[in-house]
Amino acid sequence: MSCQNPVFIPGPTNIPDRLRRAMNVQTTDHRAPDFVELLIPMLDDLKKVFKTKSGSVITFPASGTGGWEAAITNTLSPGDKVLVARYGMFSHRWIDLCQRHNLDVDIIDCDWGEGAPADLYADRLAADKNHEIKAVLVTHNETATGVVSDIAAVRGAMDAVQHPALLYVDCVSSLASMDFRMDEWGVDLAVSGSQKGFMLITGMAIVGVSEKAMKACETATCPRCFFDFRDMIKANSNGGYPYTPPLQIIHGMRESLHMLFEEGLDNVFLRHTRIAEGVRRAVGAWNMHLCARAPELYSDTVSAIYVPDGFDSDVLTNHAFDNYGVSFGVGLGQMAGKAFRIGHLGSLTDVMSLSGIATIEMAMKDLNYPIELGSGVSAAQEYYRHSTDMSKQHAA
Amino acid sequence: MSCQNPVFIPGPTNIPDRLRRAMNVQTTDHRAPDFVELLIPMLDDLKKVFKTKSGSVITFPASGTGGWEAAITNTLSPGDKVLVARYGMFSHRWIDLCQRHNLDVDIIDCDWGEGAPADLYADRLAADKNHEIKAVLVTHNETATGVVSDIAAVRGAMDAVQHPALLYVDCVSSLASMDFRMDEWGVDLAVSGSQKGFMLITGMAIVGVSEKAMKACETATCPRCFFDFRDMIKANSNGGYPYTPPLQIIHGMRESLHMLFEEGLDNVFLRHTRIAEGVRRAVGAWNMHLCARAPELYSDTVSAIYVPDGFDSDVLTNHAFDNYGVSFGVGLGQMAGKAFRIGHLGSLTDVMSLSGIATIEMAMKDLNYPIELGSGVSAAQEYYRHSTDMSKQHAA
Amino acid sequence: MSCQNPVFIPGPTNIPDRLRRAMNVQTTDHRAPDFVELLIPMLDDLKKVFKTKSGSVITFPASGTGGWEAAITNTLSPGDKVLVARYGMFSHRWIDLCQRHNLDVDIIDCDWGEGAPADLYADRLAADKNHEIKAVLVTHNETATGVVSDIAAVRGAMDAVQHPALLYVDCVSSLASMDFRMDEWGVDLAVSGSQKGFMLITGMAIVGVSEKAMKACETATCPRCFFDFRDMIKANSNGGYPYTPPLQIIHGMRESLHMLFEEGLDNVFLRHTRIAEGVRRAVGAWNMHLCARAPELYSDTVSAIYVPDGFDSDVLTNHAFDNYGVSFGVGLGQMAGKAFRIGHLGSLTDVMSLSGIATIEMAMKDLNYPIELGSGVSAAQEYYRHSTDMSKQHAA
Amino acid sequence: MSCQNPVFIPGPTNIPDRLRRAMNVQTTDHRAPDFVELLIPMLDDLKKVFKTKSGSVITFPASGTGGWEAAITNTLSPGDKVLVARYGMFSHRWIDLCQRHNLDVDIIDCDWGEGAPADLYADRLAADKNHEIKAVLVTHNETATGVVSDIAAVRGAMDAVQHPALLYVDCVSSLASMDFRMDEWGVDLAVSGSQKGFMLITGMAIVGVSEKAMKACETATCPRCFFDFRDMIKANSNGGYPYTPPLQIIHGMRESLHMLFEEGLDNVFLRHTRIAEGVRRAVGAWNMHLCARAPELYSDTVSAIYVPDGFDSDVLTNHAFDNYGVSFGVGLGQMAGKAFRIGHLGSLTDVMSLSGIATIEMAMKDLNYPIELGSGVSAAQEYYRHSTDMSKQHAA
Repeated sequence: MSCQNPVFIPGPTNIPDRLRRAMNVQTTDHRAPDFVELLIPMLDDLKKVFKTKSGSVITFPASGTGGWEAAITNTLSPGDKVLVARYGMFSHRWIDLCQRHNLDVDIIDCDWGEGAPADLYADRLAADKNHEIKAVLVTHNETATGVVSDIAAVRGAMDAVQHPALLYVDCVSSLASMDFRMDEWGVDLAVSGSQKGFMLITGMAIVGVSEKAMKACETATCPRCFFDFRDMIKANSNGGYPYTPPLQIIHGMRESLHMLFEEGLDNVFLRHTRIAEGVRRAVGAWNMHLCARAPELYSDTVSAIYVPDGFDSDVLTNHAFDNYGVSFGVGLGQMAGKAFRIGHLGSLTDVMSLSGIATIEMAMKDLNYPIELGSGVSAAQEYYRHSTDMSKQHAA
Repeated sequence: MSCQNPVFIPGPTNIPDRLRRAMNVQTTDHRAPDFVELLIPMLDDLKKVFKTKSGSVITFPASGTGGWEAAITNTLSPGDKVLVARYGMFSHRWIDLCQRHNLDVDIIDCDWGEGAPADLYADRLAADKNHEIKAVLVTHNETATGVVSDIAAVRGAMDAVQHPALLYVDCVSSLASMDFRMDEWGVDLAVSGSQKGFMLITGMAIVGVSEKAMKACETATCPRCFFDFRDMIKANSNGGYPYTPPLQIIHGMRESLHMLFEEGLDNVFLRHTRIAEGVRRAVGAWNMHLCARAPELYSDTVSAIYVPDGFDSDVLTNHAFDNYGVSFGVGLGQMAGKAFRIGHLGSLTDVMSLSGIATIEMAMKDLNYPIELGSGVSAAQEYYRHSTDMSKQHAA
Repeated sequence: MSCQNPVFIPGPTNIPDRLRRAMNVQTTDHRAPDFVELLIPMLDDLKKVFKTKSGSVITFPASGTGGWEAAITNTLSPGDKVLVARYGMFSHRWIDLCQRHNLDVDIIDCDWGEGAPADLYADRLAADKNHEIKAVLVTHNETATGVVSDIAAVRGAMDAVQHPALLYVDCVSSLASMDFRMDEWGVDLAVSGSQKGFMLITGMAIVGVSEKAMKACETATCPRCFFDFRDMIKANSNGGYPYTPPLQIIHGMRESLHMLFEEGLDNVFLRHTRIAEGVRRAVGAWNMHLCARAPELYSDTVSAIYVPDGFDSDVLTNHAFDNYGVSFGVGLGQMAGKAFRIGHLGSLTDVMSLSGIATIEMAMKDLNYPIELGSGVSAAQEYYRHSTDMSKQHAA
Repeated sequence: MSCQNPVFIPGPTNIPDRLRRAMNVQTTDHRAPDFVELLIPMLDDLKKVFKTKSGSVITFPASGTGGWEAAITNTLSPGDKVLVARYGMFSHRWIDLCQRHNLDVDIIDCDWGEGAPADLYADRLAADKNHEIKAVLVTHNETATGVVSDIAAVRGAMDAVQHPALLYVDCVSSLASMDFRMDEWGVDLAVSGSQKGFMLITGMAIVGVSEKAMKACETATCPRCFFDFRDMIKANSNGGYPYTPPLQIIHGMRESLHMLFEEGLDNVFLRHTRIAEGVRRAVGAWNMHLCARAPELYSDTVSAIYVPDGFDSDVLTNHAFDNYGVSFGVGLGQMAGKAFRIGHLGSLTDVMSLSGIATIEMAMKDLNYPIELGSGVSAAQEYYRHSTDMSKQHAA
């Protein structure tokens, strides 16, 4: 029966029925006129979620990792210098991807739990008088640590020295859940996916591309074909894909955008903040600590929580799965065994959140964690019941 | 988003994905051979759930109320005397149905919260020297009050005076969730439906019919056609229905029976007891009271809970729905405003149960009930985490 | 793979994906406010399909046979005289149902293949000076013979002698596929179901009830409870059902009505006429004959086709199913073995129709019928390609 | 209503209900143990379809084009010489992909309608004394022309001169529909996708990799990350993916393999041959010609058909879509306007095939093609009805 329980991994998310229905469509011809009528408005509407007017949105049948690769290979050339901070497993993996594509990666290593260090970015950029740095990479929401970073600050660091590098942002686990402002923040390449804030199945990489980034395609020499921006843009402009499109996910995305706009993006963000804050209140009640080191770094889509010394977080997540049939995120990389994660993004209610908090409490108690049963739940309850106004209207 | 929340009404239940998939079938011809191969084993397997070997199971495209009507009209004649105890809204409604079919209904009125009074049945039956009573009706699980009754005791009362009346049992909200023993208890007509323990959509009335009851069809003169047993039995024996069958529900029932047998009926019952006991622990922690007056009367599929004096349970359930998007059962009949109900049957986990308990706690606190946030949750958590063994193997 | 083939039975029909999706909803509380918002507009919109403004529409979780029973038992009393013509298996069954409910049925037996004999109805009604006849029953579309009858003519016969009987019409296999005008034709009780023109699963009986018929409930003494009109009307007016409603079918009906209105009822009827005419052209090309004896009797939802002397239509339909995985309707009653039926109602395109015609041609040729392969197909093709205008806009 | 019509494009195919249901699953944790139990047997079973025992199967969340890229970038280095024949749009695109990845592509240009020229491959390989050619690429089934090539012959040409190059085969539109023998033919890299013979949605690239090819990864320097074989093999061996896996397609593939094995691969191939041959008979009856120049080149998954001089095939396919709601494949590349394609792969029955033939006949007649209505249908009918034995048992 545990299939009825929500998951609390930080994506893929619990898929709302409305989107499961939307994706459950029979094959139609992707070269027929009705496909055009489906695709073009979907791409236009995606721009509203990225908050870009001048940029383009490009989708690929791939996961978010494919989006990273697309962003990099379409706009850079082997040997290009890339500046990037590493403060979690996902920023680490993006670095690895860059290195495999023969980029020269200048890494700013930070403690996990910190966000993007705008000041350190500023230092390196200021020192780069010859503008050898072609790309500045930032992970907006580090899924491994539950840290959200200030993209505007990084853009500020770039602008302060009038640095011409392109700004690349991984917003896989933030877009459509937390505010993202591509144009305002001057993001050139924004990489996301279908299975997080959009509440769909895995299978669509989504990349926001600024005009400046699009121009960079003309000179970039990293080899690419499947992920070629210009092929895709050209095919899209004719109402198609350069190869077989992921029809069912496109239908799902069409409906996901309807859902997001019906609720209103601002309400979506407030809902995420509210659900997340309830989880954070529970963590506080347990006297446990988030990896994220300061409130302004708290992610509204995922919380990474340190277990007390002497406990193994992998034992905890396994126990919760084996005994209660509920999945939480494990600690990744250097946090393996030391922290677990509660994903709280996408289609999630306070009621579902409470079931996750109650479950992990039971698991912790079973394993003799020094917590009181019900303490986290009641802290979250107290918060949720005083903050219902903003989201309660949006039953779907 | 509240569509993602479980419901806590005492049926229809939360439908597992596996059964939603099973019911999502395209039309096929109900006169084709593959329909026969679907129908006959399903009917045979239903007998295992009723625990009858000598009886038959008959299904109609209707709700449980249709099952009541079928049981009555096929086996009784206008003016026949019927003995029945009334201790809740559903026993009340069955009485009403009997009266509309011109039966002479002898009612034993009990306090709501009591179960079937075997001793009072015994008195009336003993007094009925001429065997004018043709039917003894008992509601196994009174959904309005959360009371389960001792059918064997009523049968005992009948046997003690060798009374030849037929024994009719409403097991709509108990079958496939709580133990039911048609043959052992000497039940002649057992009425159930698809949307409770079978976890399906509403639309199939299911009636267990003993050989004795089937013989009664020959002389019963209540008019009937849509619900005629013999038409159905005859058509079934030819692999069909006397009219268009509810194909999708039949597919669903086929799969539901697979699920129940894979888990094992005894495990299904234990799982219901466990989930229910957690709810009852919460009620105790709130210092509130069940309508059911004694532990042996506690239903494992639904708990009816009195609200404290001065509170209105309808306000509570409306508040829970409006503010948290969760449905609980309202108080019915004389319990309107005085009690609410938590349905805990079908496909429900401890994790889901905790979300319901947490929600109603918030709603109660919002309305200034004298309860402590988290108190019910922690009582249930404590119970659930010490009782996982019997059910945890059965993820589906 | 044969599950991908369309069925050509006269209902249940091939269910469009849009309606399968609409019905694939999780349980929600039928006592919650959103159920009201679903139910009431659906009932109102059903009135548009019946073309009644003054009447009501009542739905039950049952098949069409349940609708017959509801219409009869709510408005008549045991012993009441009923006038009805029998010209097929379904009119025959309705008669049987009336007899079982102790009505005094005056039968006008007609040859199968004929429609409702307005003149014979007129004779009997004229002779009924004392107005002993309380009900006049007509089958609008006799599914067994593929004959549609002129309801207005029967009403005319009643009006000619100012007969006060109620007019009952079975429109199970015509409503939402062929024109039906409840108010204009003075129909008092119109009985239909979800699985024909509405393209849904079996499980909802739908009854149109005139004001006059509703008044008759007050004095009618046939016993009833599950199918009681007044209970249902009262519960509906409070936004509910007197028992558990068939939620998923209600969602499906809501969407089906949207589909029908989007296409436009007149276009729906024209589409059915067009598809049917293609089938009839094929029959003509085979030199075979419809049971329906005159063009004005041709049903647009089902064609019953005599096989040549010396052939057995059951062998034919079995062969088509066994060898090609396609279901056609068998001959019913006195037509068993002598005729087969092609259902062409609901969600069916010319393309699907051609596949059915091509299949039965193969089956006939396999069995040495004196037909030419492709002859029926080409006749239908010729017709379809010259008649595309009216329907081609309505891809869904 | 046209959504009910089958598509006749050469993939994505009509998805059987069973697979739609299998893919309609809620999110579960891809790091949980049950994912392992799903993934590993699926990968093992895929090997049976490739007919490889010594090789591995690797899947990516991408389309077939991604599979091409994976095969190339994991095993080759920039500047490597690649020998490939071009005889259709898909071989052309693969060449383009190689060139973009900086390979040195030696192209054997053939007339479209021809298959892989084993003799010309042999000549070039014989001339390559220094073994500069690192890769031999062949398109098994050229979807643009409906031509299937003899892979064993190409392998023979390689073996004849003991050439050590790797053999790459595009089997996107042949695998699981036509016989493919990876080990026997000595294929080193075989590229396919989910949306053709596997009858699933687009979104999984599938690559069969020989041991020799896997070794080549160690020295190949084409940059790669998303499509890295060794990352995927390593993650798979731990029961996971290096990034988020396409869970729903994996569930679908699991069930697709069950379907294929239940029917038996040989029966699957025979079914495809039979359906295809019916289409070819129709083409013959129209006096039209396949692009494929000889019977041994006829593809069993797609037929490309030349329209007569003076006609435009794009007008034809548009007309069929606009007027009859049926999609056929357009002519691609140099065949644009000159040929249309009928896809006949995956879940398709003779009955569905006949509807496609009937439709295109109507469209041709509407446009004054010199064909007789029904001629193609009757030719196909005649063939189908004499060849039912091999497939009729496998309704699913």
